[in-house]
Amino acid sequence: MATENKQEPGQEARNASPDGEFIRDTNYIEDRIVSGISEPTEQEDGTFHWPQEAGRYRLAVARACPWAHRTVIARRLMGLEDTISLALAGPTHDVRSWQFDLDEGGVDPVLQIPRLQDAYFKRFPDYPRGITVPAIVEESTGRVVTNDYPSIVRDFITNWRDFQREGAPDLYPAQHAEEMEEINYYIFKSINNGVYRCGFAGSQEAYESAYAFMWEALDWVEDRLGKQRYMVGDHITETDIRLFVTLIRFDPVYYSHFKCSRHKMAELPNIRGYLQELFQIPGFGDTTDFTEIKQHYFMVHTEINPTKIVPVGPDMAWLMEPHDRDRFGGQPFADGTTLPGTLPAGEEVKNPEDFQLPLFNR
Amino acid sequence: MATENKQEPGQEARNASPDGEFIRDTNYIEDRIVSGISEPTEQEDGTFHWPQEAGRYRLAVARACPWAHRTVIARRLMGLEDTISLALAGPTHDVRSWQFDLDEGGVDPVLQIPRLQDAYFKRFPDYPRGITVPAIVEESTGRVVTNDYPSIVRDFITNWRDFQREGAPDLYPAQHAEEMEEINYYIFKSINNGVYRCGFAGSQEAYESAYAFMWEALDWVEDRLGKQRYMVGDHITETDIRLFVTLIRFDPVYYSHFKCSRHKMAELPNIRGYLQELFQIPGFGDTTDFTEIKQHYFMVHTEINPTKIVPVGPDMAWLMEPHDRDRFGGQPFADGTTLPGTLPAGEEVKNPEDFQLPLFNR
Repeated sequence: MATENKQEPGQEARNASPDGEFIRDTNYIEDRIVSGISEPTEQEDGTFHWPQEAGRYRLAVARACPWAHRTVIARRLMGLEDTISLALAGPTHDVRSWQFDLDEGGVDPVLQIPRLQDAYFKRFPDYPRGITVPAIVEESTGRVVTNDYPSIVRDFITNWRDFQREGAPDLYPAQHAEEMEEINYYIFKSINNGVYRCGFAGSQEAYESAYAFMWEALDWVEDRLGKQRYMVGDHITETDIRLFVTLIRFDPVYYSHFKCSRHKMAELPNIRGYLQELFQIPGFGDTTDFTEIKQHYFMVHTEINPTKIVPVGPDMAWLMEPHDRDRFGGQPFADGTTLPGTLPAGEEVKNPEDFQLPLFNR
Repeated sequence: MATENKQEPGQEARNASPDGEFIRDTNYIEDRIVSGISEPTEQEDGTFHWPQEAGRYRLAVARACPWAHRTVIARRLMGLEDTISLALAGPTHDVRSWQFDLDEGGVDPVLQIPRLQDAYFKRFPDYPRGITVPAIVEESTGRVVTNDYPSIVRDFITNWRDFQREGAPDLYPAQHAEEMEEINYYIFKSINNGVYRCGFAGSQEAYESAYAFMWEALDWVEDRLGKQRYMVGDHITETDIRLFVTLIRFDPVYYSHFKCSRHKMAELPNIRGYLQELFQIPGFGDTTDFTEIKQHYFMVHTEINPTKIVPVGPDMAWLMEPHDRDRFGGQPFADGTTLPGTLPAGEEVKNPEDFQLPLFNR
């Protein structure tokens, strides 16, 4: 188990440095699931590699969480729904753990545990850090394998090839890898984590600094999306998934709850059209549950919303209106790519908005 | 001094009924300032009438407060700046009182008091209710005369005629009085006070009920302003002042802080144009201080914003863009009406936004 710091962190950290800046907990279980081995194998750095196998692993997520949402989108776009099952924690975890309180009897039907921490403790009885989603759990032993969400997504895309749907997209094209890494890192710092730095700033000064850094990046994104249809290259990539999960939560949550409120995404024409296009593609809008997203943030963060009252708004119906991204030509995926089919039974979002219903009746 | 309940309440009440609904304190000092008398005169209902006299009274307000903002706009539109002086309390009062902490030495230069409560206590040593703005204070005695903001506005319009600027507008035209009363009452309940009912709701249910009631009214206003230039009749009236002070605070404050967030006013095309036109007219935009407005709400209401962090956004520069209200024909005021001149020295807003500067260099 690795404990080194990484650039890519998780969620729900509550640390603040002495000057009030929000600092994210960056220690993760960095095991990987790889091809070509049949047993868990320790690596030189102390992490383990686990064998790829259909039906062996369960991906535990919460609809609310943007870091988990990445894995849900990638799993669906790559056609791994039958290979790796899905456990859905509820939106309002307590200080101890995400919980399976939406499931019958309050336990996950496969893992038979009420709290995700049980899978962490099964492997590390004294696990000292945050119980985060997404996490991959071995179904037979109930032990957590990894909660390192960047590598979970990357492995779905690049390592589970033998199990992917025929015609699954290439979301990490080699010729764009270098540019993607650079942009991924920048949007992580300024946007994915940037919204949290605004919302959990411990001082007016730290907040204003985080706000300026974030809006500089959002202006850059808005400008870039005025020149090209997707963030990198000609088609949807992992970078778009990373951006989508934050931007889709911006208007319902970050704008007000985290005081990111210079503009709504709905007010920025290029980002608006970009979000509309992505939302309407299988894997994006059909895995987005605005009710659980809002419940999570507004009910869990009582330090910034002590009333726990959850906003009714905003009206997000614009997401299903026609977009203008065809003006760039091109298409979401390369020729020959196949799209995800109907959502597996039990994986429909529990609180679809009326405007979202067409996504479930394709 | 009257203690009866009125439909028109004040501000900063914090009561909640047992079911969590926000209830406003509705007891006011209902004295009036009238023409034709030379000494304060007790009325049958126990209130007093006070004589009109230039230089006798000081209007105490805070830029932050929408109820006070009405009186500031009316005073300026009617040309009463030289007749009734203006005391400007700072935005962040404490539990006791609004304070003159923006003035040199922290005391009002005319009344020589640090807190508005001193003027209330000078008249009623045991004054038991909220120390509210706006309030009119007699300069010579330092005693509060009235804090009944609806009648302060109405008297500026209809009773101080001998002191009004030549050509001042008729903001309460007799032929529209009945319609205005009806609309004033509806928008008070649903919008002026409706935003507070959203923000201070003590339960999810009370919040959702207030939100629905408010948005029904805002939809009605948006629809009405799609058919006519102003709320009542052909020109700006008191009803527009009442609506303006709430709607101009909607995007910077109520949208997020009070969770009124179905849409921003900037997103509703008719209200957007209406606010643009009013903001650009002397008396409206040149009396609006967004910094003090945001500081007040976000720093005073620690029960809903415990961090006291004040949002940098939203971008309100759209208020100074050209509007499309000329499509209805007509004009803001009747032929022959004069507009307010330059702001009196010391009455410029302390924190003008860059986009607002043209309002001060007419």
